[in-house]
Amino acid sequence: MLKVPEHQVAGHIAKDGKLGPLVDNQGRFYKPLQGDARGENEAKFYESFSSNKNVPDHIRGYFPVYHGVQLVEASDGSGKLPHMVLEDVVSSYVKPSVMDVKIGSRTWYPDVSEEYFNKCIKKDRATTTVSLGFRVSGLKIFDCQESRFWRPDKRVVLAYKADGARTALRKFVSSNSLADDSVPDCAYASEVYGGSDGILVKLLEVKAWFETQTLYHFNSCSVLMVYENDSGGDERRAQVKLVDFAHVLDGNGVIDHNFFGGLCSFIKFIQDIL
Amino acid sequence: MLKVPEHQVAGHIAKDGKLGPLVDNQGRFYKPLQGDARGENEAKFYESFSSNKNVPDHIRGYFPVYHGVQLVEASDGSGKLPHMVLEDVVSSYVKPSVMDVKIGSRTWYPDVSEEYFNKCIKKDRATTTVSLGFRVSGLKIFDCQESRFWRPDKRVVLAYKADGARTALRKFVSSNSLADDSVPDCAYASEVYGGSDGILVKLLEVKAWFETQTLYHFNSCSVLMVYENDSGGDERRAQVKLVDFAHVLDGNGVIDHNFFGGLCSFIKFIQDIL
Repeated sequence: MLKVPEHQVAGHIAKDGKLGPLVDNQGRFYKPLQGDARGENEAKFYESFSSNKNVPDHIRGYFPVYHGVQLVEASDGSGKLPHMVLEDVVSSYVKPSVMDVKIGSRTWYPDVSEEYFNKCIKKDRATTTVSLGFRVSGLKIFDCQESRFWRPDKRVVLAYKADGARTALRKFVSSNSLADDSVPDCAYASEVYGGSDGILVKLLEVKAWFETQTLYHFNSCSVLMVYENDSGGDERRAQVKLVDFAHVLDGNGVIDHNFFGGLCSFIKFIQDIL
Repeated sequence: MLKVPEHQVAGHIAKDGKLGPLVDNQGRFYKPLQGDARGENEAKFYESFSSNKNVPDHIRGYFPVYHGVQLVEASDGSGKLPHMVLEDVVSSYVKPSVMDVKIGSRTWYPDVSEEYFNKCIKKDRATTTVSLGFRVSGLKIFDCQESRFWRPDKRVVLAYKADGARTALRKFVSSNSLADDSVPDCAYASEVYGGSDGILVKLLEVKAWFETQTLYHFNSCSVLMVYENDSGGDERRAQVKLVDFAHVLDGNGVIDHNFFGGLCSFIKFIQDIL
């Protein structure tokens, strides 16, 4: 009944007896609440967010729907564990291209342990997080030429510098072969990034909310971009969702300048492609 | 002919035989080019900025005018040193209240030495830089009740947390006594921060430029806010200038997300007071 998600591009993967998220065939995503504060914090965020009257309705659409917590058989065989039940953002897609982009020029935040701080800052400085204000966390693009998915190795993705990130964003909307070094043709840029309901318009809506919202600080959160490649459908159904809220904190009347700055930088990269 | 500036609130001070900036009686500010890369980098920035056709004219008004480099007798008696000759931003004021706010959630940047990185990040984490995206670097406010300037100790200013920064910004526009713990009355907020030519309007113009400019990354730069207290004049002549460009680097096609995020956070604090 529950299986390993086919299109997950970042985070813990429930393969080879490891603990990770699962999906059902009804559009739900089950994310295990690990024994630490992170899972608890993420569930706490979803609870708060779901009932927060100060979040505009159109902004809710950029977050996975939350369906509470359920005891579910864990993917690592350790028995029934509490899992957050979320909307499976890619369930309605036949052949989705997916990219996870972690937003912000730092993934750590005030009051973390020195150990966590050191782990985060090392990664932030080694990737484009510090320089660009975002980093590509994972991607899986449908290659039309080869008629299969292209998923670069995680270590390659983490080693992207500005050019690598730029190229990945171009490949994300290209029709020519992705595995080689050919220049990405960005053939789908206007359909996926552009248009009245494309990714750029959605990102600009999110940006406008971040310009003034002081409810939450979205430390270490990602923007997930998805669109359809199935030749049967006419529509790309490009989508943007914010995901991964294990490190979200109260805003305390301060805007989320870290996320906002990074988001604006990311938007500029998308605009440059269009 | 050259003397120690009366209203300098941050940076090296040319007192007690130390090397620091000087002013003349003709509205010019002489900033010594120290033997290291910083002075050279700042002069290089001013040269580049002055001749950069891509900078809109109205944005130039937010930067001190640059008048080249001159050999001038150094304040520490070490003989003639090259000094950058800049517009003295406070020269036309009789009794200016001045505040220097360092903008950005980090003062370090990619490729600095480990030593410099460690020095910066320690200070960033100890102040409001990380949490708010800006920190108050220095201030000198004219206290109308006491009829003299109030300048809190530098160590007190660097120890400000969010509340301290908020209070300083409120005191900056208050008419009641500043030295004690009375609640700042923000009596001048609408004249200094508000109004069609007030500080908020100017900050919003700067913000709009930062939304898209990819020419420079203004690492460790400050916003200087000034206004007149002299009872003779009717006008506050509130002013905003960007200052301190020793660590400015090329933008390389990326927006200055660090400065932009911090600036937006700072703007929110000003808006909250109005």
